[in-house]
Amino acid sequence: MSDRIHAHYFVETPYDLEHATQVMAGEQSSGTFTRLASETDALREAHGARVESIQHLEVVDHPSLPLRADLAPTARHGYQRALVELSWSLVNFGPSLPNLVSTVAGNLFELKEFSGLRLLDLELPPAFADAYPGPRFGTAGTRRLSGVGQGPLIGTIVKPSVGLTPAQTAEMVCQLLDGGIDFIKDDELQANGPHSPLKARVDAIMPLVNAHAERTGKKVMYAFNISGDIDEMREHHDYVVAAGGTCVMVAINSIGLAGVTHLRRHCQVALHGHRAGWGLYSRSPHIGIGFAAYHKLWRLAGVDHIHVNGLRNKFSEADDSVIASARACQVPLFGASAPDYTVMPVFSSGQSATQVADTHAALGNSDLIYCCGGGIMAHPGGIADGVASLRQAWEAAAAGIAPEVYSRDHIELAQAMETFR
Amino acid sequence: MSDRIHAHYFVETPYDLEHATQVMAGEQSSGTFTRLASETDALREAHGARVESIQHLEVVDHPSLPLRADLAPTARHGYQRALVELSWSLVNFGPSLPNLVSTVAGNLFELKEFSGLRLLDLELPPAFADAYPGPRFGTAGTRRLSGVGQGPLIGTIVKPSVGLTPAQTAEMVCQLLDGGIDFIKDDELQANGPHSPLKARVDAIMPLVNAHAERTGKKVMYAFNISGDIDEMREHHDYVVAAGGTCVMVAINSIGLAGVTHLRRHCQVALHGHRAGWGLYSRSPHIGIGFAAYHKLWRLAGVDHIHVNGLRNKFSEADDSVIASARACQVPLFGASAPDYTVMPVFSSGQSATQVADTHAALGNSDLIYCCGGGIMAHPGGIADGVASLRQAWEAAAAGIAPEVYSRDHIELAQAMETFR
Repeated sequence: MSDRIHAHYFVETPYDLEHATQVMAGEQSSGTFTRLASETDALREAHGARVESIQHLEVVDHPSLPLRADLAPTARHGYQRALVELSWSLVNFGPSLPNLVSTVAGNLFELKEFSGLRLLDLELPPAFADAYPGPRFGTAGTRRLSGVGQGPLIGTIVKPSVGLTPAQTAEMVCQLLDGGIDFIKDDELQANGPHSPLKARVDAIMPLVNAHAERTGKKVMYAFNISGDIDEMREHHDYVVAAGGTCVMVAINSIGLAGVTHLRRHCQVALHGHRAGWGLYSRSPHIGIGFAAYHKLWRLAGVDHIHVNGLRNKFSEADDSVIASARACQVPLFGASAPDYTVMPVFSSGQSATQVADTHAALGNSDLIYCCGGGIMAHPGGIADGVASLRQAWEAAAAGIAPEVYSRDHIELAQAMETFR
Repeated sequence: MSDRIHAHYFVETPYDLEHATQVMAGEQSSGTFTRLASETDALREAHGARVESIQHLEVVDHPSLPLRADLAPTARHGYQRALVELSWSLVNFGPSLPNLVSTVAGNLFELKEFSGLRLLDLELPPAFADAYPGPRFGTAGTRRLSGVGQGPLIGTIVKPSVGLTPAQTAEMVCQLLDGGIDFIKDDELQANGPHSPLKARVDAIMPLVNAHAERTGKKVMYAFNISGDIDEMREHHDYVVAAGGTCVMVAINSIGLAGVTHLRRHCQVALHGHRAGWGLYSRSPHIGIGFAAYHKLWRLAGVDHIHVNGLRNKFSEADDSVIASARACQVPLFGASAPDYTVMPVFSSGQSATQVADTHAALGNSDLIYCCGGGIMAHPGGIADGVASLRQAWEAAAAGIAPEVYSRDHIELAQAMETFR
């Protein structure tokens, strides 16, 4: 791998494609609207962004994103789509995540030359591995902390999302612990609101988790949502750790890269990354950031888990996109030249036993967290049967047995397949 | 103002609009895909998001954002557009910026029910003013620090964006100081790269700024781009302050809300907010976050300046949007019940003397930073004449004199109007 940063884009432009791509490269390196005397050829060679490749795609009749009316470009040839690869010397900004983002996902989104511009993927030199330690726990560490040696962590989200008092939350946690759950998380809307302060929630929940661990030898992982300001997150992290907790969660987009990076350096437990707001990056094919690029930033920042939705979810994401995202989390970030920075993909959103066979088949392994809300709570047999149905579904999948077959002598799975189909 | 958070959205849906809006409210408060026993009516009343209003707009034939193919909603009635207002009780998450964002701009962007969903504006209760001090300097403080009592701060960006050594940058700064500039900023691509480390840049530049201040009594404001990780930003801020600097700059989207909020609490000088990446939020009319909502987050986080592009800029933003953004920065955030949290809008991108009259006419005041790159550097008379042309243009505008008239006995302005027209 070179010592350059490579970024891949989808673009669409009514202008000459070569010209538009040069504008893009110029804006994100040496450019201004008038070339200055001080912008020498040597400087451009050393610091200018390089257009590595342009792959023409189709021409469309209408601009995907609105162009400025007053520019009225001569679009009589239509709007050319293309895949473009740019590269930058690391010397421009060094291995710095925020400055990487300003460069590969900064002003270029605003360029008047484009009616579509989307960052698809990133390739980063190993210098980033030296600068950012990445996930402290990842898959192996999460298995160690949670005592789940194989299969997915069967998880759930405390629901309703908001409104339960700490005591009510603890009551639900109690049922979940008894039901054999591996992983519980706060909702991303539930952090430190007046009706359920984080510390009160920790005080109510951790004694239950600890007592259950003493009884069973397995410490269920509870991801406390500590999203907040920096000092608040550090304080809450410390509080969770002191209480014997093994995981904290943050809404990564709401906190931002600098905050998550900072928290990681302080963090002694698994860092659960919730991507609330992801739709802003993903919903339009014509603007935004693809998961292939996006998740690398957060892996470097140091989350151990990241959400990827799930098959047949309640959101707008298609199944192939979900699986591509989950797979990406398990691919080493720098090849063999550094730690692998793999993170556990977190499946959630409308999940139940019914999607397990397809999920396992598509992903090819069980190194994931599989979160169900209603898929556990609304099981006709109750929470324990809901958890059991999921474990049975994953056992069947790992053994290559169809869920319909496995259901014959696994009543919890049978009920789940019937209830949630 | 109530003690609730209000958020305004543009939406588009092939589903029944009332239903889709309830899904949106449910997802961002108490919802899961199966209603649970613990989700009582009382809990929903206290914690559920409330649909305050729905205003039907047009129906369109095609979805603006792709919907999942496997959902195949019956869209025979087309895609209904609407303006929707939701509100939340502050008790759900308290006055916390990250958790506000997770709530008003979180999962809802991903909902399958919508082929368009954009956050347009936010109204926040004064509890946020108690939690976040906001801009430390704002307009008055920036004028005090820079010694510019009236008119805009005439500013420039060091260009080329990257590639100059600290010594070369200092050489350019020297010319700019001699030319009578008020404000200089690093490019957003230039922070702490190996070829121009922040400290080396401070060491090269601040002695010049300080010497110039001793000579003239006016300390030119230099916005050092300290974007980076948290500890790095704190250290670099301290270094700038120790060297006598009066401003630091960060790329706010690249850092994130928690990082900027944290920096503000530590920051002793003006905090210049660059919005690189803004196109990701703004380019599509169908997904994203409008400036009216967006800038309020950063004002609360505590930036003193925020970028708004400029008239006839080199980007895709239309002039009316630029002016609406600039005006928004000057409107008090909480009415009369708190400090006004006003920030200085920063005009930049392809700016020169030619846009000044229109800018002043549209904004109605000169409480802004007016940044020109080529518009100063490429003036035929050189930097000093470039700066003079801008000051003349603003003098003319404030006096209600057309630039063509004022040009008759102001040669620098005349040349600028000719060069940059």
